[in-house]
Amino acid sequence: MRECLLSVLVLVASAGVAQTQTNTASQAARQWRQQHERAIIDEYIGLVSIPNVATDKPNIQRNTDLLVKMMQARGISTRLLTAPGANPVVYGELATPGATRSIVFYAHYDGQPVNEAEWSSPPFAPVLRSKQVSDGGSVIPLPVAGTPFDSESRLYGRSSADDKVPIMAILSALDGLHSAGIATHSTLRFVFEGEEEAGSTNLERILADNRALVTGAVWLLCDSPTHPSRRQQIVFGAPGRMVFDVTVYGANVELHGGHYGNWAPNPAFMLASLLASMRDDSGHVLISHYYDDVEPLTATEKQALREVPDVDAQLMREFGAGARIGKPMSLAELVTLPVLNVRGLLSAHVGAGAAGIVPATATASMSFGPVKGMDYRKTFEQIRKHIEAQGYFVSDTEPSLQTRMAHEKVAMVTPRGGAYNGTRTSMDLPIAREVIRAVESSVGPVIKLPTMGGAVPLEMIERVTGAPVIIVPTANHDDNQHAFDENLRIKNLWDGIELMAALLTM
Amino acid sequence: MRECLLSVLVLVASAGVAQTQTNTASQAARQWRQQHERAIIDEYIGLVSIPNVATDKPNIQRNTDLLVKMMQARGISTRLLTAPGANPVVYGELATPGATRSIVFYAHYDGQPVNEAEWSSPPFAPVLRSKQVSDGGSVIPLPVAGTPFDSESRLYGRSSADDKVPIMAILSALDGLHSAGIATHSTLRFVFEGEEEAGSTNLERILADNRALVTGAVWLLCDSPTHPSRRQQIVFGAPGRMVFDVTVYGANVELHGGHYGNWAPNPAFMLASLLASMRDDSGHVLISHYYDDVEPLTATEKQALREVPDVDAQLMREFGAGARIGKPMSLAELVTLPVLNVRGLLSAHVGAGAAGIVPATATASMSFGPVKGMDYRKTFEQIRKHIEAQGYFVSDTEPSLQTRMAHEKVAMVTPRGGAYNGTRTSMDLPIAREVIRAVESSVGPVIKLPTMGGAVPLEMIERVTGAPVIIVPTANHDDNQHAFDENLRIKNLWDGIELMAALLTM
Repeated sequence: MRECLLSVLVLVASAGVAQTQTNTASQAARQWRQQHERAIIDEYIGLVSIPNVATDKPNIQRNTDLLVKMMQARGISTRLLTAPGANPVVYGELATPGATRSIVFYAHYDGQPVNEAEWSSPPFAPVLRSKQVSDGGSVIPLPVAGTPFDSESRLYGRSSADDKVPIMAILSALDGLHSAGIATHSTLRFVFEGEEEAGSTNLERILADNRALVTGAVWLLCDSPTHPSRRQQIVFGAPGRMVFDVTVYGANVELHGGHYGNWAPNPAFMLASLLASMRDDSGHVLISHYYDDVEPLTATEKQALREVPDVDAQLMREFGAGARIGKPMSLAELVTLPVLNVRGLLSAHVGAGAAGIVPATATASMSFGPVKGMDYRKTFEQIRKHIEAQGYFVSDTEPSLQTRMAHEKVAMVTPRGGAYNGTRTSMDLPIAREVIRAVESSVGPVIKLPTMGGAVPLEMIERVTGAPVIIVPTANHDDNQHAFDENLRIKNLWDGIELMAALLTM
Repeated sequence: MRECLLSVLVLVASAGVAQTQTNTASQAARQWRQQHERAIIDEYIGLVSIPNVATDKPNIQRNTDLLVKMMQARGISTRLLTAPGANPVVYGELATPGATRSIVFYAHYDGQPVNEAEWSSPPFAPVLRSKQVSDGGSVIPLPVAGTPFDSESRLYGRSSADDKVPIMAILSALDGLHSAGIATHSTLRFVFEGEEEAGSTNLERILADNRALVTGAVWLLCDSPTHPSRRQQIVFGAPGRMVFDVTVYGANVELHGGHYGNWAPNPAFMLASLLASMRDDSGHVLISHYYDDVEPLTATEKQALREVPDVDAQLMREFGAGARIGKPMSLAELVTLPVLNVRGLLSAHVGAGAAGIVPATATASMSFGPVKGMDYRKTFEQIRKHIEAQGYFVSDTEPSLQTRMAHEKVAMVTPRGGAYNGTRTSMDLPIAREVIRAVESSVGPVIKLPTMGGAVPLEMIERVTGAPVIIVPTANHDDNQHAFDENLRIKNLWDGIELMAALLTM
């Protein structure tokens, strides 16, 4: 306990920010939590224990059954919203008499697939550890009721962080509010999705079919982790995404590298030259008009970016990187710009399997992240035109031998999977300011990011529900989400309960 | 037969060269061959029937036993030259009384491994086909003794072309010479290697241990195919070879492409930029001093290159290539320049297996072919320095995390396998002129290539034996060597017999 207090003090000191809590709902939630830590964790363990991979339909139903039960216990009226083949959205509404608006809280109850062999303990048998496994953390017993948890201890289990934790935080916060008799002011709506990690393929349809239920003054998207500095952050947007493959062609067969190395076009060199023409060493994209439609940052957004802590040195250490690109911009600023990424390369073979040949093809898996203002269709066309400008005949299907022989340079450029645009909610909107005020009244000054880096189909949510979207994360950044040994730092749940109390009472 | 004659006439016409044969030894060999076609092929089928993959020791011995028997039947005194673990070189000598010099004939009796499933007929059960399988050729019976073979028919079997055919041509030519009572002028030496396709790992040692036996006025290397125009060629050199891998590093882990795509160094882009800095689109190498030591072509070599038929259009059709690089130089001239090749690329994954990440590493498998005058050690150092000049810290082992974090850009550059230099015998040497005269007196004007493109360790043979090396091929270029359905065009054996008769009587 003493160690724990010290580490929190150090943490606050290192973040350079003193936490001040003026929000009475948050204060009530904290008091309630301090009195019920063991019960909250017991209930949460019950939820995390149920396997939740989206394809596992029987267990998905066990999740929805339990969620409905947990929500109804807090007086929330529930419905399952579904579509053919979809895992249901567990929907809930807590009406506030006289309320003139609704606030929608989104989280997802499904989780990433698991490879049990990699896990230090089974992913659906949650255990508490003194600290991270990678820091030597060992399994510890749950403190008996009435004894506080070490808030730096961690609960291990799939979706303990991504993304069941905001659900638990919301329900515990409601317990705190009820217990203290604190009233809500808006109608509260809850959209808990069951196939986010499987690509949210049915979400748009489910929302569109239930538009009246899922609209509101704001969508609070309670997913993704908090800032690496451990400070609370609010994120106002996300890029979209488009994935595509580029394959360039040499001769129709692999040719002897000695005989034909100076004679046959080498697609590996061709691809290298093409990629080098698309982006410079600092990450700046060289494709004509690529940045033209990027919506400029507002004064408020620029100011928010200046206030984001610099975590370059920390991240470079964590990631084992000897350099970062994109200087002099900060990471927070760089994610407001549309990434052009190479995700992988393949041409013939390397290492012991390589032969003395000129490869016949070379492929790059690529993606870009259209940000607010851009349209992915237009950007994709710019990329196609850029490849053509390098002398390529561009085909969107595997070129026939005839096509290959009719053109000096041939590239196949093919989209992969669905694409969507990015979006960014203005920090200057009254509802945005209200969210910032609510959060800061709970946790003190927060980090405000114009956008995150990860693609999220927020644009679709905005379009279908008509509500602006703001992301309010609760999980720790070092939660191993999507990987083995996913874990929740207990303090992030405790803070999350207070945060949700503030948001629920907006 | 009529079809056959026509196709030969067309061929000669298309090559634009009339064949004239003034060599009496070749004429005697032709006469003898025309009288013994079935016996020659029967004996050859016996040799090709014995499996000859270098690792198959019992069958390698069956090959050496038969070769010894076939050579001794022609009065050649034989020895097996060996080294621990090696397949023996079948060595033979035919002394000519009063001869003041020796001529060494090299061939190899081992063959490439086979994947029987791919073959149209079993690789070690030779069959005659009317034409190529790929052209619809069907198995035909062997003509009875006294009836001529269709010289466009093909004998299918592993090593029917690569490289038992010169052995059969030499032995049949000796039969013709003996039968006509034509004397030889030089002592004839035969070096038939048994592990060429396994990398010739023991050849240097065997030659060095038997230096007095294997030296001579010239080494005639009877391997590799004739020109795609079907004309006889003589090749005076070959490049050396050095293979190496280049791996460049980003962060120590794959990072989220959306979050970190503009911030983390992307090794796929880094490698693209590095490769693009090494070679331009025409294949010209941009590394400083790369071409400095290339020994310039002599006037004779330049004249020989001008006389090489242009096969660009034919090759582009055969290979399904829409372009060739290296213009305006011809293929024959391009192989005299040191190739810098990318054999393969790999970074993370492409296609369905690709993920939305910034890769952690990217690797290119590369090679270069040092030509006469260059030293591969110096060139490799130039390449290292070039990579350093692009800002990389270059390591020859897997860099530690500490090393990666201490440098903005880190590359690992590691040699793979043995390297050796190229060489080129001057066409102006008296012995070279003598070889050209002998061959042309048998087959008419020949194509003279300063070097071939494929790497061959000729430099080692020159160094150890002190003899200049000249390559005199006999097999057809479209023989599927190293692949399934290897085949010998019968005419190439017939021509080879006459060619060898001329060379044996130099």
